[in-house]
Amino acid sequence: MAEAGRVVIIGAGFGGLSAARKLARAGVPLTLIDKKNHHLFQPLLYQVASAALSPAEIAVPVRSVLSPGKTGDVKILMEEVQGIDTDRKLVRSVGGDEIAYESLIIAAGSKFTYFGKEDEWAENAPALKSLDDALNIRRRVLLAFERAETTHDENLRQRLMTFVIIGGGPTGVEMAGALAELARATLARDFTNIDPRAARVVLVEAVDTLLGAYPAHLGAYAEKKLTELGVEVRTQSPVEVINADGVTAGGEMIETSNIFWCAGVEAVPVGEWLGVPTEKNGTVPVGADLRLPGRKDIFIIGDAATVLDEDGKPFPALAPVAKQQGKYAADAIIRQREGRAEQAPFHYRDWGTMATIGRAAAVAKFGKIEVTGFPAWLLWGFVHVAYLVGFRNRITVLINWLWHWLTYAKGSRLITGPDEAAIRAVDSRKAVDEELDKTVNAVD
Amino acid sequence: MAEAGRVVIIGAGFGGLSAARKLARAGVPLTLIDKKNHHLFQPLLYQVASAALSPAEIAVPVRSVLSPGKTGDVKILMEEVQGIDTDRKLVRSVGGDEIAYESLIIAAGSKFTYFGKEDEWAENAPALKSLDDALNIRRRVLLAFERAETTHDENLRQRLMTFVIIGGGPTGVEMAGALAELARATLARDFTNIDPRAARVVLVEAVDTLLGAYPAHLGAYAEKKLTELGVEVRTQSPVEVINADGVTAGGEMIETSNIFWCAGVEAVPVGEWLGVPTEKNGTVPVGADLRLPGRKDIFIIGDAATVLDEDGKPFPALAPVAKQQGKYAADAIIRQREGRAEQAPFHYRDWGTMATIGRAAAVAKFGKIEVTGFPAWLLWGFVHVAYLVGFRNRITVLINWLWHWLTYAKGSRLITGPDEAAIRAVDSRKAVDEELDKTVNAVD
Repeated sequence: MAEAGRVVIIGAGFGGLSAARKLARAGVPLTLIDKKNHHLFQPLLYQVASAALSPAEIAVPVRSVLSPGKTGDVKILMEEVQGIDTDRKLVRSVGGDEIAYESLIIAAGSKFTYFGKEDEWAENAPALKSLDDALNIRRRVLLAFERAETTHDENLRQRLMTFVIIGGGPTGVEMAGALAELARATLARDFTNIDPRAARVVLVEAVDTLLGAYPAHLGAYAEKKLTELGVEVRTQSPVEVINADGVTAGGEMIETSNIFWCAGVEAVPVGEWLGVPTEKNGTVPVGADLRLPGRKDIFIIGDAATVLDEDGKPFPALAPVAKQQGKYAADAIIRQREGRAEQAPFHYRDWGTMATIGRAAAVAKFGKIEVTGFPAWLLWGFVHVAYLVGFRNRITVLINWLWHWLTYAKGSRLITGPDEAAIRAVDSRKAVDEELDKTVNAVD
Repeated sequence: MAEAGRVVIIGAGFGGLSAARKLARAGVPLTLIDKKNHHLFQPLLYQVASAALSPAEIAVPVRSVLSPGKTGDVKILMEEVQGIDTDRKLVRSVGGDEIAYESLIIAAGSKFTYFGKEDEWAENAPALKSLDDALNIRRRVLLAFERAETTHDENLRQRLMTFVIIGGGPTGVEMAGALAELARATLARDFTNIDPRAARVVLVEAVDTLLGAYPAHLGAYAEKKLTELGVEVRTQSPVEVINADGVTAGGEMIETSNIFWCAGVEAVPVGEWLGVPTEKNGTVPVGADLRLPGRKDIFIIGDAATVLDEDGKPFPALAPVAKQQGKYAADAIIRQREGRAEQAPFHYRDWGTMATIGRAAAVAKFGKIEVTGFPAWLLWGFVHVAYLVGFRNRITVLINWLWHWLTYAKGSRLITGPDEAAIRAVDSRKAVDEELDKTVNAVD
């Protein structure tokens, strides 16, 4: 399947998609490979997990963003990558295809890491990374309340109504705030045997502050706001044990059947594909031109790469960084093809970072300016909606938020998926417990 | 768990929910049991299966409709029913609970029947009944195009791009029209190796006309419109064989990997629960007062019951019938409690029936008046949106339809679920085939 002059992009996240759009507009023939059929707006994923938004509101089919029939010579393959042959210049897919490239952009992203304990921990502490993860977590949260309502075992009820979130970064902070609100406001009057407001939400963080990437006093503000929402914040509590009974962190054992993993990330195995050494977190170090050292035809961008800034510090794994790197790599390829001069080294324009803590509290940082509280929340909402891919998504997300804001009702709290089959197939609470864990963990 | 004076309702479909609302408003203590946590707007289910709407747009959590904390003494249990003890007056759940009732309303609905061939046919011809069914069918349809795009086997490609819908009732007609539009308009320019417009959509019906419940010339109109949309309509073609290679109907073998079942329905095992004889289709015959003969305390309504009208003909299994029966049963219970006179026998007010055939073609029947074409489509849209439970759903469905109407873009065509895990886990096309069938059929 040799083909001359083609750019191949691996990954349809923020980095890959921004590169693809720029190249397509310039008329460069390209093939985009992703194992999913959709681009995911990852910063809002926790809102699906906490039943505030629907999957279709934060994800958009790659084919509808880059409609191949409309945007020149664009091919989209829903495939998984198995390896890269840098000598023959081709990407090998799991399905056995070989896709030839002239230039290659690797934007394969990252996944959560359990720090080597995946075999032990992943089963009882699912991570929040993909749309399927979010749907599984939503199912587990909603089913926990349903089962707490019907059980006659007081001890089981306590375990079902305890939620532990591991990781005090933006995802963990946002997830804890959203779960506390779900329990204390949305579900408050929906049950008769239990009081959802009595649910415990515990946020566990290994180091001594939340939001480590932000200035310390913003972390302190987040901790104060979460505490006001009823979240128990445990800093300096590295996780020691996770099993079916609960989690032990910082010497304390918390009995729970709901543990969600929002901690460290590591890159997908780009190093293995290329046969090159990686950093400890799996990322591949690249130069300030985003190229694999010694290879003018291979770019690595976004969460899969480590790029150092002017001060020698790595750029953070954020959507805006990936987007700007995608545009940079596309521009470099266009210049190369047109025989124009090389660009200056990659420079990141920091428009600020933000996190939200439940309803109407947020922290934001724009360069030297820091904002907290309701103004930060408004800004957060505005920026996130504006960034959403697709006009229709923007409108429906706005309506959903407005509606949620006015009524505290969460319209997306549907339980779908294998759990119902499991409930039907078995006939004791205990078996449901086990079956549920099995089916939930079987997916992804 | 004996409790005096409680009404127990089994099923949160149109019938059960309308009874529950009326009883709750009258202050009657009630328990609603359903194995799902959501009420489903079944008439639009095919729009989820054909990627036009999202699950949250046609389903609403039962707890948000009947918020127990707001509407008096209402309990909601997410449980599956195992049996009914009519002497001790209690409902037994699969989980082992016994729920005592003073009056019982059984509104447990229906499921598709494979006419005794379930073991052979269900695996290769999934039915369209629940939200999970719709999501599975959506996944299969979208994955079929993705795999047709990447395969090098021309024969497999043909099979992947052939869609067979079995059953020429409203669901089958609507599903065939929606799939033809998905292929010919929405996806038309999204692929490079295949032309989605070349997809075959075949609608198979055993008898000699579509829409058997409507007057004959409306069935003929539907057939003409479907043919214009490119659907191959095969009437007088009873299904003989269904297997992994395809379907044989009316002596013709159609090779396909996409067979969807929209044929006969039968009631859930209400007869078994009660230990009473049923009709051939599993429904329990009840009197014109909707009560189980000889039992003043048990009502059976909706698809689970056979009720004869003044002319001795059974009422059709339609949402409006179930709704009106739910109100009737609730009213009978309220009268009984207040010591008032019995109602007149149940009378169905027929506001008309409708079906839609793709974009801007529909058939409708209101008493003696029949409408076809664009006016019928407008009416259909208006009535369905007006009936949707929940204000927010109405707005977002309207926006989605308007958007779809203007752009032909289907925003909900996300592939989620086990398929991706399957694709990741295996490494040959054939294995993907098998794995996919397994995982898709494992659910429900």
